[in-house]
Amino acid sequence: MQNFVFHNPTKLIFGENTIEVIGKEISKNGIKRILLLYGGGSIKKNGVYDTVVKSLKDNNIVFVEHSGVVPNPVLSHANEGIELCKRNNLEAILAVGGGSVIDEAKSIAAGFYLNNLWDAFERKEEIKDALPVFTILTISGTGSEMNPFAVLTNEFEKKKWNIGATCLYPRATIIDPRIQMSLPWHQTVNGGIDAISHILEYYFNSTVQEVSISISEALIRTIVLCLDKLQVNQYDYPARANLAWAATLALNGFVGSSTIGEWAAHRIEHGISALYPEIAHGAGLAVVFPAWISYTRKTNPSQYERFAKNVWNSNSLDDALTVMKSKYSSWGAPISLRELNIPKEKIGEIAYNASRLGVVGNLLPLTEEEMAEILELAY
Amino acid sequence: MQNFVFHNPTKLIFGENTIEVIGKEISKNGIKRILLLYGGGSIKKNGVYDTVVKSLKDNNIVFVEHSGVVPNPVLSHANEGIELCKRNNLEAILAVGGGSVIDEAKSIAAGFYLNNLWDAFERKEEIKDALPVFTILTISGTGSEMNPFAVLTNEFEKKKWNIGATCLYPRATIIDPRIQMSLPWHQTVNGGIDAISHILEYYFNSTVQEVSISISEALIRTIVLCLDKLQVNQYDYPARANLAWAATLALNGFVGSSTIGEWAAHRIEHGISALYPEIAHGAGLAVVFPAWISYTRKTNPSQYERFAKNVWNSNSLDDALTVMKSKYSSWGAPISLRELNIPKEKIGEIAYNASRLGVVGNLLPLTEEEMAEILELAY
Repeated sequence: MQNFVFHNPTKLIFGENTIEVIGKEISKNGIKRILLLYGGGSIKKNGVYDTVVKSLKDNNIVFVEHSGVVPNPVLSHANEGIELCKRNNLEAILAVGGGSVIDEAKSIAAGFYLNNLWDAFERKEEIKDALPVFTILTISGTGSEMNPFAVLTNEFEKKKWNIGATCLYPRATIIDPRIQMSLPWHQTVNGGIDAISHILEYYFNSTVQEVSISISEALIRTIVLCLDKLQVNQYDYPARANLAWAATLALNGFVGSSTIGEWAAHRIEHGISALYPEIAHGAGLAVVFPAWISYTRKTNPSQYERFAKNVWNSNSLDDALTVMKSKYSSWGAPISLRELNIPKEKIGEIAYNASRLGVVGNLLPLTEEEMAEILELAY
Repeated sequence: MQNFVFHNPTKLIFGENTIEVIGKEISKNGIKRILLLYGGGSIKKNGVYDTVVKSLKDNNIVFVEHSGVVPNPVLSHANEGIELCKRNNLEAILAVGGGSVIDEAKSIAAGFYLNNLWDAFERKEEIKDALPVFTILTISGTGSEMNPFAVLTNEFEKKKWNIGATCLYPRATIIDPRIQMSLPWHQTVNGGIDAISHILEYYFNSTVQEVSISISEALIRTIVLCLDKLQVNQYDYPARANLAWAATLALNGFVGSSTIGEWAAHRIEHGISALYPEIAHGAGLAVVFPAWISYTRKTNPSQYERFAKNVWNSNSLDDALTVMKSKYSSWGAPISLRELNIPKEKIGEIAYNASRLGVVGNLLPLTEEEMAEILELAY
C-alpha cells in the first residue's frame, strides 16, 4: 500500500433545497464580484438559474454572466471568461452545471493568473494560484465538483487534455439531487458510467489496498443499483441522492488514495472526443472501458477475477464483461465504436491523438499501436 | 436520505516514514512554539519521540513537553496543559499518541479560549475558537485524528463526556502504520473494535443511504480481515495500513454523512469507563455493542437482517451475533461484563451514569432502566 496525502478542503453542501444558500456561502468568503458560468440554458428551464440569481442578489453579490459552455468545453470560451474576469475585476467563479462547466470554471480560475492558459495543459507553465471556484452541480458523474482536476479541449489543435493543482479544489460545492430528476435519461446514464469509470481507473492496479478496493466495489454496485432504479422511476429521490454522492466519492481522492491511477481508458476516450466533440464522455467510456479491461487482463489476473466476482457476480472475467456490457446496453448506452458512428478507418487517428501527451497507463503502459488494438476490440 | 454538509479540512499524511515531516508541516503553518503532548512514554521506546524531537529542532520549533496523559484522559491534566500553553505563549498543540492524547489535545486547544473547560462539556459554554492541533497517531481506532470530537473524563464528578466543534479538526495528522507493528495485541484489537463500533453507530438508523451502508459493510469486513491477518503476523504492513485507514474513515464524516448517529452504545460504555477508568474503551464496546444490537433489533428489522447477511454472512441476527462475539472472543476481547470483572450489582450505577447527559439514542431513545436491561444482557 502506497504512502499518500489526503487533503480535500472542498465544503460539500448536499441535499434538497440547498442551492438557495449559494449567495451566503460566497459572501462568507468575503467575495462580492463573481463570474456566473453556465452552459446552454437548461438551468433557466429547471428553475436553478432563478434560485441562484435571487440568492446572489439577496447577498449583494455582483455577477457577470458567461453562458454557452459546451459539452467538452473549449479553450476559446475559457479565454473569453478570463478576459471577462480581468475586465470586470471579478474575484471568484460560480459554475452552475455539470463537469463541462466546472472544468471550464477551473480553467478560467487558473488562467486568470497564467500568461497563457493552454501552456498549463502542455506542462509548459505551472499553476500556482487560482481564483476561488464555487460550484452548483446539475448532473453527477464528473467528480470535478470535489477534486482539483479539469479537462479542456483545444479546438484549434484537436487536443483534449487535463490540468490538476491544489488551488483548483472548489471552495464550496452544492449538490441538490432533486434537480437531477428532470435530466434526460441518457445524461443520467452517461454520468453514472463516467463515475463507474473513475473508480475503475484505480481498481485494477494493486491487490493490497483492501480499503480502496472494497469501497470501490461498494460504490460501483451502488451506482448500478441506483441507475436500475432510476430507469424505472426517474423521481426516486434516494436513488438520485445515492448516485450523486457515489459519483462524488468516485473521484474526490478517497478511492484512489493508496494507489496510482491508470487513466488509459480516459486518455483513449479523450482521443475520441477531441475528434468527435459531440460524443458524450460517458458514452465514449462505455465503449472503451470493457475493451481496455479485456486487453489488460493478464497484468494482474487475481484482481480481474475479483472484479468479475465482487462487482458482477460472475465466475469469469469473460462472463463479467458480458454482464457489464449487457447492463450498459440495457441502460441505452453504446458499447461499440460502431454504435458511436465512428468509422473503423479513424482508429489510427484516435490512437495517435490519445498518445500525444506521452505514455498512457501504469499497469500496462500503452503505445499508440496498443491503443489502436484496444479500439479494434471496442469496434 | 438526509441533507448533510461534508467539510473535513484535516490534512492526512499517511504511510511509512512520514513522522519526520511533522516539523516542516507545523512550520508551514507559521507556528513556532508548541505544546508537545504525550502519554506514558511508549513513544520513547519505539523511536517516535526521537524522530519528532529531531524534526521539531530541525525546523526551529520551540516545544514545551506535557507527558502523562492517561487512557481515558482526565480534566485536571488537561487544565494543566492549558496553563502551560498560557504561561509559555504556545501557539499550537502536537499530540503524539492514540485517542486519549488527541482528545486531551483538543480539550486543551479549546480550553485555551474558554473561561472554564468543563463548562463546554456541560453545554454551558460554547467553543468558538481553538489552538491549532497537529497529531501523530500511534494507535488506530479512535478516529479523533480526522474529526472534530473529543471525550474527556471529569475525574472529580465521574463523568466521561464529549465535545465537538468545527475548529477542533486537526490541522494535520500523520499516520505511519509501521510504528503500530510493535503494539501489544490487545491494544490493536481494542482499536479495531472501537473502529467497528464507530461504523455501527451509524449503520442501523436507516435503509436508504445505500452509499453509507455499503461502505460501512466494506469497512467492517476489511477491519475484521486485517485483525485476523495481524493475529497471525503482527508485522503484516498492508494489514496494518488498511486497518489504520479504515479506522480513520470510520469516523471522519463519510460513513455517517447522510444519517444521524445513534451513540447509545458509546454512552453506555462511557458510563462503564467513567467508573472503571482502567477498562479500555474498545474492550467496553466489545461487551456493550452486541447486547445493544440484540436489544434494539425490532426497531428496523430489515437493516438488522442486512447486517447479519452482509457483514457476518449469517442467515439470522442471532447467528450473526454469535459469529460476531466468537470473532471478538477469538481476538481475546471480552464479550461480557463478567469478563470485565464488573459485579452485577454495579449495573444500576452504570446506567445512571450513562443517562446523566440526557436521552441516549435516536433509533430507540433509551431510559436509564432500558440501559440497565442492555447491561443485564451484556452480563
